[in-house]
Amino acid sequence: MNTFGNIFRLTCFGESHGRALGGVIDGCPAGVVVDEEFVQSELDRRRPGQSSLTTSRNEADKVEFLSGIFEGKTTGTPIGFVIYNTNQHSSDYANIKDVFRPSHADYTYTEKYGFRDYRGGGRSSARETACRMVSGALAKLMLKQAGFDIQIVAKMTEVGGETENIEQVILKAKENGDTVGGVISCNISGVPVGWGEPVFGKLQSMLASAMLSINAAKGFEYGMGFEMAKKFGSQVNDIFTTKDGKITTLTNNSGGIQGGISNGEDIYFRVAFKPVATLLTEQPTVDKDGNATMLKVRGRHDACVLPRAVPIVEAMAAMVLADAYLLNKSSRL
Amino acid sequence: MNTFGNIFRLTCFGESHGRALGGVIDGCPAGVVVDEEFVQSELDRRRPGQSSLTTSRNEADKVEFLSGIFEGKTTGTPIGFVIYNTNQHSSDYANIKDVFRPSHADYTYTEKYGFRDYRGGGRSSARETACRMVSGALAKLMLKQAGFDIQIVAKMTEVGGETENIEQVILKAKENGDTVGGVISCNISGVPVGWGEPVFGKLQSMLASAMLSINAAKGFEYGMGFEMAKKFGSQVNDIFTTKDGKITTLTNNSGGIQGGISNGEDIYFRVAFKPVATLLTEQPTVDKDGNATMLKVRGRHDACVLPRAVPIVEAMAAMVLADAYLLNKSSRL
Amino acid sequence: MNTFGNIFRLTCFGESHGRALGGVIDGCPAGVVVDEEFVQSELDRRRPGQSSLTTSRNEADKVEFLSGIFEGKTTGTPIGFVIYNTNQHSSDYANIKDVFRPSHADYTYTEKYGFRDYRGGGRSSARETACRMVSGALAKLMLKQAGFDIQIVAKMTEVGGETENIEQVILKAKENGDTVGGVISCNISGVPVGWGEPVFGKLQSMLASAMLSINAAKGFEYGMGFEMAKKFGSQVNDIFTTKDGKITTLTNNSGGIQGGISNGEDIYFRVAFKPVATLLTEQPTVDKDGNATMLKVRGRHDACVLPRAVPIVEAMAAMVLADAYLLNKSSRL
Amino acid sequence: MNTFGNIFRLTCFGESHGRALGGVIDGCPAGVVVDEEFVQSELDRRRPGQSSLTTSRNEADKVEFLSGIFEGKTTGTPIGFVIYNTNQHSSDYANIKDVFRPSHADYTYTEKYGFRDYRGGGRSSARETACRMVSGALAKLMLKQAGFDIQIVAKMTEVGGETENIEQVILKAKENGDTVGGVISCNISGVPVGWGEPVFGKLQSMLASAMLSINAAKGFEYGMGFEMAKKFGSQVNDIFTTKDGKITTLTNNSGGIQGGISNGEDIYFRVAFKPVATLLTEQPTVDKDGNATMLKVRGRHDACVLPRAVPIVEAMAAMVLADAYLLNKSSRL
Repeated sequence: MNTFGNIFRLTCFGESHGRALGGVIDGCPAGVVVDEEFVQSELDRRRPGQSSLTTSRNEADKVEFLSGIFEGKTTGTPIGFVIYNTNQHSSDYANIKDVFRPSHADYTYTEKYGFRDYRGGGRSSARETACRMVSGALAKLMLKQAGFDIQIVAKMTEVGGETENIEQVILKAKENGDTVGGVISCNISGVPVGWGEPVFGKLQSMLASAMLSINAAKGFEYGMGFEMAKKFGSQVNDIFTTKDGKITTLTNNSGGIQGGISNGEDIYFRVAFKPVATLLTEQPTVDKDGNATMLKVRGRHDACVLPRAVPIVEAMAAMVLADAYLLNKSSRL
Repeated sequence: MNTFGNIFRLTCFGESHGRALGGVIDGCPAGVVVDEEFVQSELDRRRPGQSSLTTSRNEADKVEFLSGIFEGKTTGTPIGFVIYNTNQHSSDYANIKDVFRPSHADYTYTEKYGFRDYRGGGRSSARETACRMVSGALAKLMLKQAGFDIQIVAKMTEVGGETENIEQVILKAKENGDTVGGVISCNISGVPVGWGEPVFGKLQSMLASAMLSINAAKGFEYGMGFEMAKKFGSQVNDIFTTKDGKITTLTNNSGGIQGGISNGEDIYFRVAFKPVATLLTEQPTVDKDGNATMLKVRGRHDACVLPRAVPIVEAMAAMVLADAYLLNKSSRL
Repeated sequence: MNTFGNIFRLTCFGESHGRALGGVIDGCPAGVVVDEEFVQSELDRRRPGQSSLTTSRNEADKVEFLSGIFEGKTTGTPIGFVIYNTNQHSSDYANIKDVFRPSHADYTYTEKYGFRDYRGGGRSSARETACRMVSGALAKLMLKQAGFDIQIVAKMTEVGGETENIEQVILKAKENGDTVGGVISCNISGVPVGWGEPVFGKLQSMLASAMLSINAAKGFEYGMGFEMAKKFGSQVNDIFTTKDGKITTLTNNSGGIQGGISNGEDIYFRVAFKPVATLLTEQPTVDKDGNATMLKVRGRHDACVLPRAVPIVEAMAAMVLADAYLLNKSSRL
Repeated sequence: MNTFGNIFRLTCFGESHGRALGGVIDGCPAGVVVDEEFVQSELDRRRPGQSSLTTSRNEADKVEFLSGIFEGKTTGTPIGFVIYNTNQHSSDYANIKDVFRPSHADYTYTEKYGFRDYRGGGRSSARETACRMVSGALAKLMLKQAGFDIQIVAKMTEVGGETENIEQVILKAKENGDTVGGVISCNISGVPVGWGEPVFGKLQSMLASAMLSINAAKGFEYGMGFEMAKKFGSQVNDIFTTKDGKITTLTNNSGGIQGGISNGEDIYFRVAFKPVATLLTEQPTVDKDGNATMLKVRGRHDACVLPRAVPIVEAMAAMVLADAYLLNKSSRL
């Protein structure tokens, strides 16, 4: 289950402290000019150490394409890529080898698979999302060169319950050795009418699946979302009208999707993220034999996942749209 | 994209006013005793006309199994079933043939496919969820007979912003010819540790995809959900402890899933539903040529989707769990 | 694993003596005019009792479409259909309930699933191929209306080792209470260059998978096939040339596919079928407890599978091509 | 379509003269001890230059695992690997840049994708099968450690129509600058009863799909195969008997599979391969504009694909069996 998508598909691999991360992008149409600088710049966006908000680890991630590109363009064959791990401090993790960190996947991985790669969270580390940046960048290039002017813009809109002074909330949590959750909002303009595949490939279903696959995500809502549950139909129905000879809606409470299919209006959604589970303060927990113990995690950790999750949200959205576009090619004779 | 699941899979079909709905349940292990009365009773749960809260249509849906069951047990071969449509008033819909109902899928289906079955919403009608009830019932039987004591309980917890007097809120909306949204909360106990398939088949990702595929769903959150985005890590981490020789957590803010894998605690989540788009009051809209017109829908319609969505939420959760259970069989040597 | 195809997909169900066979055709583009008489006539082609060569059972199979078609055209939603079983003599099979017929699937189904629907072979009966006729007919209609003049023609070219007097070989086998095998050859003209998806969806790979899924099929070869294994490259390479301004090949030993992709020449292949396993003479075997016994099968059975397998071969080829056509829509920007 | 398998899945990438080949093995259960020397030795088996029969290219392929293995064992997470291309002579191929080699994929790739990576055949080169060796080796290790004593043995049984002196036939073709086809036979012992997933995942269907995905394969037959098409049922039915308290068959004309499911007898099949298309003699052809030209290919090429295809056949068979084993875990409650 490390493959995402139906036609435009990413299959990825890699642990936090293994030799490399990487993946295979299959189903990307031939002829896409691959701007490797753009891809690298997208990958750089999730890199830590870019501001005071994120950890000081300097993960100089460098994507290397291994196949599927010839003379600067995609050839229609699978695009293999790797990102070597270069700056890992595995010794930081020796003390968690036999201990389960609270609200981490240590315990569930151990129970499911019999043992686990304990170094830095292994596969459960958010580090795997680097691969999604590469695939998302390809998706963006493909959509653009296919002639769509789609703008996917995600941003932090709430942290620790605050909608202003977001950076200060994060800095304060960091000072306290604490962590904090928040909400990322994403707006997508330029998606034409018709993308999304009912009934199980509804566009919102694909987006929800994509967003909830991101580490620390706890919720997804689109359009008015949970707020719409408080409303009456007479308050929120989106009335159709005609503007410049084109059918549109007066409001967009639906969030650009009706019946699982894009309707040409902006698609917007929100994703809730929990606070990072790794605290720098001491916490009680148990070891693998169930014995009570205290845990004080070392290492460099983010106080808030959001700054680095913003580009991931965009990348996943781009992959969903690339797939939806290609799927829709078969909708009519 | 009318197939749900990986091993335990439902492929379904059917329009609101076509001859029949139905589907194929593939991948159900052999040997499950099929209690057809239970399946029918599950199907009956989403039937309208059961209380004053729902429409008076008397859809006496009757599931007929056509294959895959022999001498009362599943044989391991695909289980085909149909539910014939018997009480459809297609003439009710003649006036929407060329008009797009606000916040319905009329417009998007027409644009995507070139034309649409306008009778009652066609495939976009919530009527298709009847098939999910059948598949969900099979999933419940399978899980139970596989030895799991899993309890999936969904209920309405909020309607129109109210958490009490929910029935009265719905009745009031109905009296006004209006409709109202709400939230369904679902709790699942008894899921063992280890279900869920990172990184794209995380249990929350599968659940989110399932829930957002339900008509009118606008949001999904699990554990503390969006509320968790307001918190600090020190407030919400689930501390491990040992109870009766078994590792457990003191709190369950995570909602029973860590790293995409069930951790043995209760799984709980909430699903937001918008108000039904079909109002009995007159609304402005446009016709297929973009001309402004007024629309007054006839027919029998629910004032609130929630009473009938409760069993759908349970059914989809059961299907996700059935699939997760079978997928997990391959997790270890 | 009762789903065939990637975009154009058949999911089917049904046992020989159950209530009905049927299926769901998903992914068929909207706008295909469904000539139901054509579909029925295709289904009739595999019906027994049409000539002295086939069994006298009069299976008046009638396909009933239940969804996905509106005003005579496909709507883009899943097409459900059923074929009710009406003329089954289940009592014919009481004597094989606890006995394993030689070279049948009785033993393997029992071991795999714990028990089996013993009536007429259950799911392992060739009767399930009726559903493939319906789906194949839809595929043919879709390809034609998409503008392709593709001709798929299968025929018996060898029976019991004879290439002439094929009918007499079958009749003679029938007179002897025996059965006989043979070869079906299929030629497909009109497929444009470019269909097929390397490396695991090569056109020949999809065709081989399709053909070997047909009951009693034992082999598949395309182009020169096994004969080509006896040759030197200098003898069999297909030399390119230009004719009427179009690149073509002087010979077509490759069978219309190079590198897994159609090259515009005729695609041709052969499928080997074994003799029907059900003999009307007495055979030694064992019962479910391993005790030796003698078995004399009653009922009406074909002496040769080929007359009825000819349309199945065509139907499966049509489904492969429909899928390959839709997949190829994503090959280029 | 560069993914093979359902649960045990290989997704691979790489061109003949690109930077690297590689892939992701997903769905391999945790706990498999990975004998990297064994994997490398399997990969070495398809390497050219091992005998006078194969090309003198010295492709010192070295597999590097990048993830999914910790402390020598699979962790249940995806296993990424790369094989860097180190000894490629791309300049050898400048003269085929604009010319279509007869019976190669040059023309079809160009037409399908708009252009092609012309260096050495790009993705259509048999070089991609190196990745299958890695995945096949993992499959073998997994099956063995799961407790099965499965022996998969393929060998050349016919070359150029000869069943003896096979090596001399190849050498003679090589001396003549010619190439020659042949047949590989494969026998598999030790597969338990019950593997294979009717009706579209029949074991023979999965094997046929696997074998026809190998470069230059033209046919597949199992059991008696095409020879069985010449027989009467009374000649070839496999009569059941009991031996040592276990049900078995007196003969094994079926080739170890009945109804798509393994029956515990040896599985055997044959795969036909065409002569290598690249001749060292001059051949007429056309260029990309359709102009007639003569082509004399340089470079180092095999005179016969069979010596190096033998381990590929085994590897693909191992992958099919690994997948069939895992799929079968869900067959019964």
